[in-house]
Amino acid sequence: MKNSSKLLEDAINEIAKLPGIGKKSAMRMALFLLNQPTEMVDNFAKTILKLRNEILFCKICNNISDFEICEICNNEKRDFSTICVVESIREVLAIENTHQYSGVYHVLGGILSPIDGVGIKDLNIENLEKRIQENSIQELILALRPTFEGDTTNYYLNRKFKPYNLKITTLARGIAVGDELEYTDEVTLGRSILQRIPFEN
Amino acid sequence: MKNSSKLLEDAINEIAKLPGIGKKSAMRMALFLLNQPTEMVDNFAKTILKLRNEILFCKICNNISDFEICEICNNEKRDFSTICVVESIREVLAIENTHQYSGVYHVLGGILSPIDGVGIKDLNIENLEKRIQENSIQELILALRPTFEGDTTNYYLNRKFKPYNLKITTLARGIAVGDELEYTDEVTLGRSILQRIPFEN
Repeated sequence: MKNSSKLLEDAINEIAKLPGIGKKSAMRMALFLLNQPTEMVDNFAKTILKLRNEILFCKICNNISDFEICEICNNEKRDFSTICVVESIREVLAIENTHQYSGVYHVLGGILSPIDGVGIKDLNIENLEKRIQENSIQELILALRPTFEGDTTNYYLNRKFKPYNLKITTLARGIAVGDELEYTDEVTLGRSILQRIPFEN
Repeated sequence: MKNSSKLLEDAINEIAKLPGIGKKSAMRMALFLLNQPTEMVDNFAKTILKLRNEILFCKICNNISDFEICEICNNEKRDFSTICVVESIREVLAIENTHQYSGVYHVLGGILSPIDGVGIKDLNIENLEKRIQENSIQELILALRPTFEGDTTNYYLNRKFKPYNLKITTLARGIAVGDELEYTDEVTLGRSILQRIPFEN
Protein backbone atom coordinates (compact mmCIF):
# COMPACT_ATOMS: atom_id res chain seq x y z
CA MET A 1 0.00 0.00 0.00
CA LYS A 2 1.67 3.16 -1.22
CA ASN A 3 0.75 6.46 0.30
CA SER A 4 1.95 9.96 -0.14
CA SER A 5 3.04 10.67 3.43
CA LYS A 6 6.30 9.32 4.83
CA LEU A 7 5.17 10.27 8.33
CA LEU A 8 2.09 8.10 7.92
CA GLU A 9 4.06 5.27 6.38
CA ASP A 10 6.57 5.29 9.23
CA ALA A 11 3.78 5.22 11.78
CA ILE A 12 2.05 2.35 9.97
CA ASN A 13 5.30 0.38 9.89
CA GLU A 14 5.85 0.90 13.60
CA ILE A 15 2.30 -0.07 14.54
CA ALA A 16 2.45 -3.14 12.29
CA LYS A 17 5.30 -4.45 14.47
CA LEU A 18 2.76 -5.16 17.22
CA PRO A 19 1.72 -8.82 17.43
CA GLY A 20 -1.34 -9.69 15.37
CA ILE A 21 -1.46 -6.35 13.56
CA GLY A 22 -1.21 -6.26 9.76
CA LYS A 23 -0.67 -3.24 7.55
CA LYS A 24 -4.39 -2.58 7.07
CA SER A 25 -5.18 -2.55 10.78
CA ALA A 26 -2.05 -0.49 11.38
CA MET A 27 -3.28 2.11 8.90
CA ARG A 28 -6.68 2.18 10.55
CA MET A 29 -4.98 2.82 13.89
CA ALA A 30 -2.63 5.45 12.50
CA LEU A 31 -5.56 7.35 10.96
CA PHE A 32 -7.47 6.97 14.22
CA LEU A 33 -4.56 8.50 16.15
CA LEU A 34 -4.36 11.31 13.57
CA ASN A 35 -7.95 12.21 14.35
CA GLN A 36 -7.46 12.29 18.11
CA PRO A 37 -6.62 15.44 20.12
CA THR A 38 -2.87 16.00 20.52
CA GLU A 39 -3.09 15.45 24.28
CA MET A 40 -4.60 12.00 23.81
CA VAL A 41 -1.79 10.94 21.45
CA ASP A 42 0.80 12.50 23.78
CA ASN A 43 -0.60 10.52 26.64
CA PHE A 44 -0.72 7.34 24.57
CA ALA A 45 2.96 7.61 23.67
CA LYS A 46 4.07 8.66 27.14
CA THR A 47 2.23 5.82 28.88
CA ILE A 48 3.95 3.27 26.66
CA LEU A 49 7.36 4.85 27.20
CA LYS A 50 6.72 4.93 30.93
CA LEU A 51 5.77 1.27 30.95
CA ARG A 52 8.96 0.30 29.14
CA ASN A 53 11.29 2.54 31.12
CA GLU A 54 9.90 2.37 34.63
CA ILE A 55 8.64 -1.15 35.07
CA LEU A 56 10.53 -3.36 37.51
CA PHE A 57 10.78 -7.09 37.91
CA CYS A 58 10.02 -8.44 41.37
CA LYS A 59 13.30 -9.36 43.09
CA ILE A 60 11.73 -12.49 44.51
CA CYS A 61 9.56 -14.02 41.79
CA ASN A 62 10.50 -12.03 38.67
CA ASN A 63 6.86 -11.01 38.08
CA ILE A 64 6.57 -7.52 36.58
CA SER A 65 5.87 -4.92 39.18
CA ASP A 66 5.85 -1.20 39.91
CA PHE A 67 7.93 -1.88 43.02
CA GLU A 68 10.98 -3.94 43.91
CA ILE A 69 8.78 -6.60 45.47
CA CYS A 70 5.53 -7.38 43.65
CA GLU A 71 2.09 -7.18 45.25
CA ILE A 72 1.78 -10.93 45.47
CA CYS A 73 5.15 -11.49 47.19
CA ASN A 74 4.32 -8.57 49.46
CA ASN A 75 0.93 -9.93 50.51
CA GLU A 76 1.12 -11.51 53.96
CA LYS A 77 -2.02 -13.53 53.32
CA ARG A 78 -0.37 -15.62 50.60
CA ASP A 79 1.03 -19.06 51.33
CA PHE A 80 4.79 -18.66 50.88
CA SER A 81 5.47 -22.37 51.21
CA THR A 82 3.91 -23.10 47.80
CA ILE A 83 5.56 -21.81 44.63
CA CYS A 84 3.83 -22.05 41.27
CA VAL A 85 6.39 -22.02 38.44
CA VAL A 86 5.09 -20.29 35.29
CA GLU A 87 6.48 -19.21 31.96
CA SER A 88 5.49 -15.54 31.99
CA ILE A 89 3.39 -12.91 33.67
CA ARG A 90 0.46 -13.91 31.44
CA GLU A 91 0.10 -17.20 33.28
CA VAL A 92 0.31 -15.37 36.61
CA LEU A 93 -2.66 -13.23 35.54
CA ALA A 94 -4.58 -16.24 34.20
CA ILE A 95 -4.13 -18.21 37.42
CA GLU A 96 -4.87 -15.16 39.60
CA ASN A 97 -8.12 -14.74 37.68
CA THR A 98 -9.29 -18.19 38.78
CA HIS A 99 -9.17 -17.09 42.46
CA GLN A 100 -8.23 -20.69 43.29
CA TYR A 101 -4.60 -20.22 44.25
CA SER A 102 -3.22 -18.55 47.33
CA GLY A 103 0.46 -19.47 47.03
CA VAL A 104 3.19 -17.42 45.35
CA TYR A 105 4.75 -17.61 41.89
CA HIS A 106 8.07 -17.92 40.16
CA VAL A 107 8.23 -16.50 36.62
CA LEU A 108 10.82 -18.37 34.54
CA GLY A 109 10.74 -15.88 31.68
CA GLY A 110 10.35 -18.62 29.07
CA ILE A 111 10.61 -22.38 28.64
CA LEU A 112 13.43 -24.54 27.37
CA SER A 113 13.38 -24.48 23.58
CA PRO A 114 16.47 -25.50 21.62
CA ILE A 115 14.80 -24.34 18.38
CA ASP A 116 14.37 -20.80 19.70
CA GLY A 117 17.77 -20.97 21.38
CA VAL A 118 16.37 -20.81 24.91
CA GLY A 119 18.60 -22.77 27.26
CA ILE A 120 18.81 -23.30 31.01
CA LYS A 121 20.92 -20.17 31.50
CA ASP A 122 18.20 -18.01 29.89
CA LEU A 123 15.59 -18.91 32.49
CA ASN A 124 15.34 -17.75 36.10
CA ILE A 125 16.16 -21.17 37.48
CA GLU A 126 19.10 -20.13 39.63
CA ASN A 127 16.86 -17.68 41.50
CA LEU A 128 14.33 -20.42 42.03
CA GLU A 129 16.96 -22.72 43.50
CA LYS A 130 18.06 -19.96 45.85
CA ARG A 131 14.46 -19.41 46.95
CA ILE A 132 14.09 -23.11 47.67
CA GLN A 133 17.37 -23.25 49.56
CA GLU A 134 16.68 -20.21 51.70
CA ASN A 135 12.99 -20.71 52.51
CA SER A 136 10.97 -23.63 53.75
CA ILE A 137 9.14 -24.49 50.54
CA GLN A 138 6.66 -27.38 50.80
CA GLU A 139 5.38 -27.63 47.25
CA LEU A 140 6.50 -26.69 43.78
CA ILE A 141 3.69 -26.58 41.19
CA LEU A 142 4.99 -26.84 37.62
CA ALA A 143 2.43 -24.89 35.60
CA LEU A 144 4.06 -24.76 32.18
CA ARG A 145 2.28 -25.16 28.90
CA PRO A 146 1.32 -28.71 27.90
CA THR A 147 3.67 -28.92 24.91
CA PHE A 148 6.90 -30.70 24.18
CA GLU A 149 8.93 -27.70 25.36
CA GLY A 150 6.81 -27.33 28.49
CA ASP A 151 7.17 -31.02 29.30
CA THR A 152 10.93 -30.88 28.77
CA THR A 153 11.19 -27.93 31.13
CA ASN A 154 8.98 -29.73 33.68
CA TYR A 155 11.22 -32.79 33.42
CA TYR A 156 14.36 -30.73 33.96
CA LEU A 157 12.94 -28.85 36.93
CA ASN A 158 11.61 -32.03 38.51
CA ARG A 159 15.03 -33.68 38.29
CA LYS A 160 16.83 -30.60 39.56
CA PHE A 161 14.63 -30.01 42.60
CA LYS A 162 13.85 -33.59 43.66
CA PRO A 163 16.87 -33.67 46.03
CA TYR A 164 15.33 -30.83 48.04
CA ASN A 165 12.68 -33.20 49.31
CA LEU A 166 9.62 -31.14 48.45
CA LYS A 167 6.32 -32.07 46.84
CA ILE A 168 6.50 -31.44 43.11
CA THR A 169 3.16 -31.33 41.31
CA THR A 170 1.90 -30.29 37.91
CA LEU A 171 -1.42 -29.01 36.55
CA ALA A 172 -4.12 -31.64 36.06
CA ARG A 173 -4.60 -32.54 32.41
CA GLY A 174 -7.78 -33.92 30.98
CA ILE A 175 -10.96 -32.89 29.26
CA ALA A 176 -11.84 -29.23 29.70
CA VAL A 177 -15.03 -28.21 31.48
CA GLY A 178 -17.77 -28.01 28.84
CA ASP A 179 -15.79 -29.96 26.23
CA GLU A 180 -17.46 -32.34 23.80
CA LEU A 181 -15.80 -35.74 24.22
CA GLU A 182 -16.26 -36.33 20.50
CA TYR A 183 -14.03 -33.39 19.64
CA THR A 184 -11.43 -33.87 22.38
CA ASP A 185 -8.11 -34.95 20.90
CA GLU A 186 -7.15 -38.59 21.42
CA VAL A 187 -4.10 -37.95 23.58
CA THR A 188 -6.06 -35.80 26.01
CA LEU A 189 -9.02 -38.19 26.13
CA GLY A 190 -6.70 -41.19 26.51
CA ARG A 191 -4.86 -39.56 29.40
CA SER A 192 -8.07 -38.54 31.10
CA ILE A 193 -9.18 -42.19 31.14
CA LEU A 194 -5.84 -43.49 32.39
CA GLN A 195 -5.63 -40.81 35.05
CA ARG A 196 -9.29 -40.99 36.06
CA ILE A 197 -10.20 -39.63 39.47
CA PRO A 198 -12.74 -40.70 42.15
CA PHE A 199 -16.21 -39.33 41.49
CA GLU A 200 -17.14 -36.59 43.94
CA ASN A 201 -20.45 -34.89 44.48
CA MET B 1 -8.45 -8.48 34.33
CA LYS B 2 -6.71 -7.35 37.49
CA ASN B 3 -2.97 -7.11 37.55
CA SER B 4 -0.45 -5.97 40.04
CA SER B 5 1.21 -3.22 37.98
CA LYS B 6 -0.40 0.17 37.51
CA LEU B 7 2.10 0.98 34.76
CA LEU B 8 0.99 -2.10 32.84
CA GLU B 9 -2.66 -1.38 33.47
CA ASP B 10 -2.31 2.21 32.21
CA ALA B 11 -0.55 1.00 29.07
CA ILE B 12 -3.22 -1.64 28.45
CA ASN B 13 -5.95 0.98 28.84
CA GLU B 14 -4.24 3.32 26.36
CA ILE B 15 -3.65 0.59 23.79
CA ALA B 16 -7.23 -0.63 24.14
CA LYS B 17 -8.39 2.79 22.90
CA LEU B 18 -7.19 1.84 19.42
CA PRO B 19 -9.98 0.72 17.10
CA GLY B 20 -10.62 -3.02 17.10
CA ILE B 21 -8.38 -3.71 20.11
CA GLY B 22 -9.84 -5.32 23.23
CA LYS B 23 -8.22 -5.66 26.64
CA LYS B 24 -6.73 -9.08 25.89
CA SER B 25 -5.03 -7.97 22.67
CA ALA B 26 -3.92 -4.78 24.40
CA MET B 27 -2.25 -6.80 27.12
CA ARG B 28 -0.53 -8.98 24.54
CA MET B 29 0.81 -5.83 22.87
CA ALA B 30 1.88 -4.23 26.14
CA LEU B 31 3.81 -7.36 27.13
CA PHE B 32 5.32 -7.48 23.65
CA LEU B 33 6.52 -3.88 24.00
CA LEU B 34 7.91 -4.71 27.45
CA ASN B 35 10.08 -7.39 25.88
CA GLN B 36 11.46 -5.14 23.15
CA PRO B 37 14.71 -3.16 23.41
CA THR B 38 14.24 0.34 24.84
CA GLU B 39 15.28 1.92 21.52
CA MET B 40 12.52 0.09 19.65
CA VAL B 41 9.86 1.30 22.09
CA ASP B 42 11.34 4.82 22.01
CA ASN B 43 11.13 4.81 18.27
CA PHE B 44 7.60 3.44 18.31
CA ALA B 45 6.38 6.24 20.58
CA LYS B 46 8.32 8.97 18.77
CA THR B 47 7.06 7.96 15.34
CA ILE B 48 3.46 8.16 16.52
CA LEU B 49 4.02 11.54 18.17
CA LYS B 50 5.73 12.80 15.03
CA LEU B 51 2.83 11.66 12.88
CA ARG B 52 0.32 13.48 15.05
CA ASN B 53 2.35 16.66 15.50
CA GLU B 54 3.98 17.15 12.11
CA ILE B 55 1.47 15.93 9.57
CA LEU B 56 -0.06 18.57 7.30
CA PHE B 57 -3.23 18.64 5.28
CA CYS B 58 -2.83 19.51 1.59
CA LYS B 59 -3.97 23.10 1.06
CA ILE B 60 -5.68 22.13 -2.19
CA CYS B 61 -7.39 18.78 -1.62
CA ASN B 62 -7.15 18.29 2.17
CA ASN B 63 -5.37 14.95 1.74
CA ILE B 64 -2.84 14.27 4.50
CA SER B 65 0.64 15.16 3.45
CA ASP B 66 4.16 15.84 4.68
CA PHE B 67 4.16 19.09 2.69
CA GLU B 68 1.75 21.99 2.15
CA ILE B 69 0.74 20.57 -1.22
CA CYS B 70 0.34 16.79 -1.39
CA GLU B 71 2.17 14.58 -3.86
CA ILE B 72 -0.92 14.05 -5.98
CA CYS B 73 -1.77 17.77 -6.33
CA ASN B 74 1.91 18.39 -7.00
CA ASN B 75 2.16 15.82 -9.79
CA GLU B 76 2.06 17.49 -13.20
CA LYS B 77 1.00 14.26 -14.87
CA ARG B 78 -2.36 14.20 -13.09
CA ASP B 79 -5.51 15.44 -14.79
CA PHE B 80 -6.47 18.55 -12.82
CA SER B 81 -9.79 18.95 -14.61
CA THR B 82 -11.26 15.90 -12.88
CA ILE B 83 -11.88 15.92 -9.14
CA CYS B 84 -12.85 12.78 -7.27
CA VAL B 85 -14.69 13.66 -4.05
CA VAL B 86 -14.00 11.19 -1.23
CA GLU B 87 -14.76 10.91 2.45
CA SER B 88 -11.26 10.40 3.83
CA ILE B 89 -7.68 9.61 2.96
CA ARG B 90 -8.53 5.90 3.13
CA GLU B 91 -10.59 6.17 -0.04
CA VAL B 92 -7.77 8.12 -1.72
CA LEU B 93 -5.42 5.21 -0.98
CA ALA B 94 -7.98 2.61 -2.11
CA ILE B 95 -8.58 4.37 -5.43
CA GLU B 96 -4.85 5.03 -5.95
CA ASN B 97 -4.25 1.32 -5.47
CA THR B 98 -6.48 0.50 -8.45
CA HIS B 99 -4.12 2.48 -10.78
CA GLN B 100 -7.23 3.36 -12.81
CA TYR B 101 -7.55 7.02 -11.96
CA SER B 102 -5.32 9.88 -13.05
CA GLY B 103 -7.35 12.86 -11.84
CA VAL B 104 -7.05 14.62 -8.50
CA TYR B 105 -9.01 14.30 -5.26
CA HIS B 106 -10.94 16.33 -2.77
CA VAL B 107 -11.13 14.92 0.75
CA LEU B 108 -14.36 16.00 2.48
CA GLY B 109 -13.27 14.82 5.90
CA GLY B 110 -16.54 12.98 6.48
CA ILE B 111 -20.07 12.64 5.12
CA LEU B 112 -23.30 14.31 6.15
CA SER B 113 -24.70 12.45 9.12
CA PRO B 114 -27.29 14.11 11.34
CA ILE B 115 -27.04 11.23 13.83
CA ASP B 116 -23.32 11.81 14.35
CA GLY B 117 -23.83 15.57 14.26
CA VAL B 118 -21.90 16.04 11.01
CA GLY B 119 -23.37 18.95 9.04
CA ILE B 120 -22.42 20.87 5.91
CA LYS B 121 -20.14 23.23 7.83
CA ASP B 122 -18.09 20.28 9.13
CA LEU B 123 -17.06 19.14 5.66
CA ASN B 124 -14.56 20.75 3.28
CA ILE B 125 -17.28 21.81 0.86
CA GLU B 126 -16.43 25.52 0.78
CA ASN B 127 -12.90 24.68 -0.36
CA LEU B 128 -14.31 22.48 -3.07
CA GLU B 129 -16.56 25.27 -4.33
CA LYS B 130 -13.58 27.63 -4.44
CA ARG B 131 -11.59 25.05 -6.40
CA ILE B 132 -14.42 24.72 -8.89
CA GLN B 133 -14.81 28.48 -9.20
CA GLU B 134 -11.11 29.18 -9.70
CA ASN B 135 -10.13 26.29 -11.98
CA SER B 136 -11.59 24.85 -15.14
CA ILE B 137 -13.02 21.65 -13.71
CA GLN B 138 -14.68 19.35 -16.25
CA GLU B 139 -15.87 16.50 -14.10
CA LEU B 140 -16.73 15.88 -10.47
CA ILE B 141 -16.79 12.22 -9.45
CA LEU B 142 -18.77 11.61 -6.28
CA ALA B 143 -17.08 8.58 -4.71
CA LEU B 144 -18.77 8.39 -1.33
CA ARG B 145 -19.85 5.22 0.40
CA PRO B 146 -23.04 3.57 -0.88
CA THR B 147 -25.08 4.19 2.25
CA PHE B 148 -27.93 6.49 3.20
CA GLU B 149 -25.46 9.12 4.48
CA GLY B 150 -23.29 8.80 1.40
CA ASP B 151 -26.30 9.14 -0.88
CA THR B 152 -27.51 12.18 1.04
CA THR B 153 -24.11 13.83 0.68
CA ASN B 154 -24.02 12.94 -3.03
CA TYR B 155 -27.47 14.47 -3.45
CA TYR B 156 -26.44 17.67 -1.68
CA LEU B 157 -23.20 18.02 -3.66
CA ASN B 158 -24.96 17.33 -6.94
CA ARG B 159 -27.55 20.05 -6.26
CA LYS B 160 -24.91 22.51 -5.09
CA PHE B 161 -22.54 22.12 -8.04
CA LYS B 162 -25.04 21.61 -10.85
CA PRO B 163 -25.10 25.38 -11.62
CA TYR B 164 -21.38 25.26 -12.44
CA ASN B 165 -22.15 23.34 -15.61
CA LEU B 166 -19.77 20.43 -15.09
CA LYS B 167 -20.21 16.72 -15.54
CA ILE B 168 -21.14 15.13 -12.24
CA THR B 169 -20.72 11.35 -12.04
CA THR B 170 -20.75 8.73 -9.35
CA LEU B 171 -19.16 5.29 -8.92
CA ALA B 172 -20.83 2.43 -10.80
CA ARG B 173 -22.86 0.19 -8.52
CA GLY B 174 -23.64 -3.41 -9.21
CA ILE B 175 -22.41 -6.89 -8.54
CA ALA B 176 -18.79 -7.12 -7.48
CA VAL B 177 -16.28 -8.97 -9.63
CA GLY B 178 -16.26 -12.59 -8.46
CA ASP B 179 -19.56 -12.30 -6.57
CA GLU B 180 -22.04 -15.16 -6.40
CA LEU B 181 -25.38 -13.87 -7.77
CA GLU B 182 -27.14 -16.12 -5.29
CA TYR B 183 -25.61 -14.28 -2.33
CA THR B 184 -25.75 -10.74 -3.73
CA ASP B 185 -28.28 -8.65 -1.82
CA GLU B 186 -31.56 -7.92 -3.59
CA VAL B 187 -31.11 -4.17 -3.85
CA THR B 188 -27.70 -4.48 -5.50
CA LEU B 189 -28.84 -7.26 -7.84
CA GLY B 190 -32.02 -5.35 -8.73
CA ARG B 191 -30.08 -2.20 -9.52
CA SER B 192 -27.57 -4.08 -11.59
CA ILE B 193 -30.38 -5.39 -13.79
CA LEU B 194 -32.08 -2.02 -14.16
CA GLN B 195 -28.78 -0.28 -14.90
CA ARG B 196 -27.43 -3.01 -17.16
CA ILE B 197 -24.68 -2.03 -19.55
CA PRO B 198 -23.81 -3.05 -23.14
CA PHE B 199 -21.78 -6.26 -23.29
CA GLU B 200 -18.18 -5.63 -24.24
CA ASN B 201 -15.49 -8.11 -25.07
